[in-house]
Amino acid sequence: MKKEKLHIVKIGGKIIEDEYRLSEVLDAFSAKEGRKILIHGGGKRASELLQTLGIQPRMINGRRITDAPTLEIVIMVYAGLINKNIVAQLQARSCNAIGLSGADANVILAEKREVKAIDYGFAGDIYKIDNQSINSIITNNFAPVFCAITHDGKGQLLNTNADTVAAEVAKAMAPFYDVYLYYCFEKKGVLTDPLNEDSFLPTLEVKQYQNLKTEGIISEGMIPKLDNAFSVLQHQVREVIIGDIQSLSGTTGTILKN
Amino acid sequence: MKKEKLHIVKIGGKIIEDEYRLSEVLDAFSAKEGRKILIHGGGKRASELLQTLGIQPRMINGRRITDAPTLEIVIMVYAGLINKNIVAQLQARSCNAIGLSGADANVILAEKREVKAIDYGFAGDIYKIDNQSINSIITNNFAPVFCAITHDGKGQLLNTNADTVAAEVAKAMAPFYDVYLYYCFEKKGVLTDPLNEDSFLPTLEVKQYQNLKTEGIISEGMIPKLDNAFSVLQHQVREVIIGDIQSLSGTTGTILKN
Repeated sequence: MKKEKLHIVKIGGKIIEDEYRLSEVLDAFSAKEGRKILIHGGGKRASELLQTLGIQPRMINGRRITDAPTLEIVIMVYAGLINKNIVAQLQARSCNAIGLSGADANVILAEKREVKAIDYGFAGDIYKIDNQSINSIITNNFAPVFCAITHDGKGQLLNTNADTVAAEVAKAMAPFYDVYLYYCFEKKGVLTDPLNEDSFLPTLEVKQYQNLKTEGIISEGMIPKLDNAFSVLQHQVREVIIGDIQSLSGTTGTILKN
Repeated sequence: MKKEKLHIVKIGGKIIEDEYRLSEVLDAFSAKEGRKILIHGGGKRASELLQTLGIQPRMINGRRITDAPTLEIVIMVYAGLINKNIVAQLQARSCNAIGLSGADANVILAEKREVKAIDYGFAGDIYKIDNQSINSIITNNFAPVFCAITHDGKGQLLNTNADTVAAEVAKAMAPFYDVYLYYCFEKKGVLTDPLNEDSFLPTLEVKQYQNLKTEGIISEGMIPKLDNAFSVLQHQVREVIIGDIQSLSGTTGTILKN
């Protein structure tokens, strides 16, 4: 039986920080027909608020060290300010959005990351997605908007990487839908020349990716993003696309292939 | 046809501020069988954060003056920190909670209060509740947890009084359910002697209420709360109860009657 399409769009911090870009993405997301899910990162706002409150933000390998006061701030900014503003702006575009953390409807369960060389604090590694619950929300014609806050099922909220939330939600929904996962950021796609915005590859196969990594053409910052994105393809997700806002309509973006 | 029962529990700031009391309420709410909705106020946390950030909280007649920076803080604290913590703690008690602002699923539409003698800023007066949407969430076996943030449908979030949200949600759900509305606060009920906690009235009729007001027995702080609560009885809501945590099981509490 042919499955229905489900578009999952992850938007990063640089889009959220830029009012104009965010507005463009929300226009494109609202205009997209059919079933859809939005997943958003955080942007600089949480770090700014932490600094105003005299708490020094700490990052290791691009991951936030989430101590107890930091956790409170990221919950406030991600699940509160950013999530509700995005939902209200989607409603203004007649998109019936519903904002969710992983605790809401018990959709994303995570466990607090074990302390090894680094203590990441209240960082959550996802171990279960309730795809039935997410599906019941989608089939009620709501468009879920996820922030990257999860919970452990025992009352503790946790901070999770938004790219990972997108990957795990995409994998979990693949049994029900033909899932198209868009990692939407400020570039047109995977660039072969970082100084030339138009040098994006329309497609990227995993072998080609390995070669470009070896040749040093794909820059370091992109590697965890692409590793994560390629891993999703192993799990029946139909297509993974990395690109800017226009990639939602297929004008730009790099389609990843096995 | 006999309608199903729906329990709507509003919890005030003094309960939210007190970890032990909050835990007790969440125990009682989780244990309550059948359809249910929780609505929470804010407590001191938003005011504390405002002060830390150098913004002076302003209240007139118990209502917050919500300028733009204040709105951001109340969204963060009410829709983010408090709402998600309550949801996570309900999940830990096997209550399948889903946190909602009025923007989520477009459930509560409000308009920015007109500026007359006082400019309340981004304060929202409710004009529409989408009871069908709320019902679709309830019938999916989720327990909605509302914060008192609403929206205008044009992208603007608004700050609304939590008692009013509870009253309007109760009225809107009355066509579908036998609605029991609990205003849960720190006292056992409507007291005839403010110094004696056990002097709560088991029932209070509207005529008796008018007499007690005239005699000055019901204190000023209770009057807007009770006026609001009595008004709900005009709208087919089955029962309105004012009391402490034990009122959820019928041990304490004042039942209001027409």
